[in-house]
Amino acid sequence: MTRINDHYLKLKAGYLFPEIGRRVKAFQTANPKADIIRLGIGDVVLPLVPAVVEAMERAVRELGTAEGFRGYGPEQGYGFLIDAILEHDFRSRDVSLRASEIFVSDGSKCDTGNIQEIFSTQNVIAVTDPVYPVYVDTNVMAGRSGAFRESGHYDGIVYMPTTAENGFAPALPEARVDLVYLCSPNNPTGAVLNREQLKKWVDFAREREAVILFDAAYEAFITDPAIPHSIYEIPGAEEVAIEFRSFSKTAGFTGTRCAYTVVPEKLRCRDADGNAVALNPLWNRRHTTKFNGVSYPVQRGAEACYSPEGKRQIRGQIEYYLTNAALIREGLTAAGLQVYGGVNAPYLWLKTPGGMGSWEFFDKLLGEAHVVGTPGAGFGPSGEGYFRLSAFGLREKIQEAIVRIQTKLKF
Amino acid sequence: MTRINDHYLKLKAGYLFPEIGRRVKAFQTANPKADIIRLGIGDVVLPLVPAVVEAMERAVRELGTAEGFRGYGPEQGYGFLIDAILEHDFRSRDVSLRASEIFVSDGSKCDTGNIQEIFSTQNVIAVTDPVYPVYVDTNVMAGRSGAFRESGHYDGIVYMPTTAENGFAPALPEARVDLVYLCSPNNPTGAVLNREQLKKWVDFAREREAVILFDAAYEAFITDPAIPHSIYEIPGAEEVAIEFRSFSKTAGFTGTRCAYTVVPEKLRCRDADGNAVALNPLWNRRHTTKFNGVSYPVQRGAEACYSPEGKRQIRGQIEYYLTNAALIREGLTAAGLQVYGGVNAPYLWLKTPGGMGSWEFFDKLLGEAHVVGTPGAGFGPSGEGYFRLSAFGLREKIQEAIVRIQTKLKF
Repeated sequence: MTRINDHYLKLKAGYLFPEIGRRVKAFQTANPKADIIRLGIGDVVLPLVPAVVEAMERAVRELGTAEGFRGYGPEQGYGFLIDAILEHDFRSRDVSLRASEIFVSDGSKCDTGNIQEIFSTQNVIAVTDPVYPVYVDTNVMAGRSGAFRESGHYDGIVYMPTTAENGFAPALPEARVDLVYLCSPNNPTGAVLNREQLKKWVDFAREREAVILFDAAYEAFITDPAIPHSIYEIPGAEEVAIEFRSFSKTAGFTGTRCAYTVVPEKLRCRDADGNAVALNPLWNRRHTTKFNGVSYPVQRGAEACYSPEGKRQIRGQIEYYLTNAALIREGLTAAGLQVYGGVNAPYLWLKTPGGMGSWEFFDKLLGEAHVVGTPGAGFGPSGEGYFRLSAFGLREKIQEAIVRIQTKLKF
Repeated sequence: MTRINDHYLKLKAGYLFPEIGRRVKAFQTANPKADIIRLGIGDVVLPLVPAVVEAMERAVRELGTAEGFRGYGPEQGYGFLIDAILEHDFRSRDVSLRASEIFVSDGSKCDTGNIQEIFSTQNVIAVTDPVYPVYVDTNVMAGRSGAFRESGHYDGIVYMPTTAENGFAPALPEARVDLVYLCSPNNPTGAVLNREQLKKWVDFAREREAVILFDAAYEAFITDPAIPHSIYEIPGAEEVAIEFRSFSKTAGFTGTRCAYTVVPEKLRCRDADGNAVALNPLWNRRHTTKFNGVSYPVQRGAEACYSPEGKRQIRGQIEYYLTNAALIREGLTAAGLQVYGGVNAPYLWLKTPGGMGSWEFFDKLLGEAHVVGTPGAGFGPSGEGYFRLSAFGLREKIQEAIVRIQTKLKF
């Protein structure tokens, strides 16, 4: 008699984005003429840049020729892409990594979700609250939690609140923690960890023999030159941290799918007998057994992001989104709202006015301004009373959304 | 203190294909002039067909335009592809499935590796021996086995030998089994399960409340019109089977990456309390949480496989490979070898001559004929004494390999 993985039954129903989709659909059905502006899910809107399109087209045509055809590629990614990554994302910031430490994949959602598989189910995970739901849900599925409580927490998971009170910087936990998920620039709060804060986490992890799972999917949006883009800019981090990077928001690849994960060779954990075991070969085994590499044209497209034209074109898009963020920040501040984030990140994190609940504010914003955002509570109980807006929109839509919020929202 | 997933330490070292790669590389280094013909890993060699190339190019260009750009797609796949799948792969064979039962993914390796996550780690798995290694390794990683034994078996896994003695058809196991992996047309043996045999398995699964994980990645190579292409052609299978399909070998997508998995809504298993739980929502949750959809141009390429030109062009490639298979079968039989498979499958399964071990035959074939194949023992202990050749090669290489085997191999 076949049994299911009972841990799935602990997952709270209604994953955040489907629930938003449901409410938006219901509103649109009831108000078919409403022109809804979506600043919710955080999906990019600008087209792929010409350098990427040309590289992908060329690669597709190559696959249609006898000489150019390629079948299975290396599961870890092609050398041409890994070399570009090493050179432009790391060597340029004085971080020295090896090709064998880079694992190209089809998305950071997948990687941050899959990485927990190489760790013991007995490990205690720590997450910020609010947090990107994938970190939590994949650990619940694997059995690293108890039941979901009405408080909005799962038993057995350590939550580190990040709110306006602590400047959205999580405090070091006193409880035992083994795997710490950090996301900087942060989704959803738009906050960024500075060098000193990152160093504190690296030192903590070294002292506790913990591992930091560092999600840097939004590093391209850092504007402050003093902020590290990689955790490996902190000495000693290569012994305690795994880093996740993505082309999704950097180069508009949300529908194209490419990302990579860094698992340094110096990173070691313990087996049941207390022996040190390197994580790189474990992840390599996982990656080569359960994954078969990223589509070749997509890898050529990702490579093109590092050419001089590609870099320039992509930089233009990032600046476009950052200008959107600045406009939202200014416009909503002028409207009397308290706004965080949006400086080193494409996300803005509002305090809901008048102590309003974040789903209540979602319905109000949708109903009165026809603007879709993401309720902070959807990212965890400490997100209650906050609300996420994304700067990934077309300029005129962003401007229209700001005007509507300034003029239609009654508060 | 962070602990690793100790189950990984049970995995026997040297995954099959890396080991082959290592031996070939060593041979090539020692014999730089040797013209090696690779019939080992089973990778396609013909270019993508024009219908696919055109559709992918068009999609890439679309992504480069403001009007045509698409970001995140549905994690389960675009409707245009799912509709084509339902129509051409199933309705045409009188199998009625719903769109919500199809999950488009980036590969059957991934899907057959990931599917076990929605099941209890207490379930007992059954695999044929020899078997595609991914089924076993992913279950070992998840903890559904004991130690690896010198016999070549993992404790706790039920092995069903398939050899010439039983016509490469696994016998129904008497031991308790919950998850049964079946692959037909089979990798590596090239054998195919007929309607009667499939019905026997479906009846068995229904009686035992077991689940069949049916890997049909090679269904396009079936030539015998009496052989089912889908397990759902057997009445009642939708209550006990998950099916895996792939564009990799059907349409040369090994480097392009597209596949899909069918999880019927009627399929139910038990939770710890014995309640029936539908698997479709569990897989949907897994798929949407740990995966973010297939690249849009790739899905357009897959869709093009179902257009009249696409179908015709792909059919031409399949027939090309099947002709290769027939040539190998005839040529090696004429050389005095005992050859199985290669009729409804792109794989040929040789009995190694003179009771030779399969790695010994690998080295002999490489050393004397400069031809790379896959040692049967790499697929499991009952594969010892057998050897896999793939028909995925260019015609002139296949012909050259046959001549070399006929003339250079000393036996």
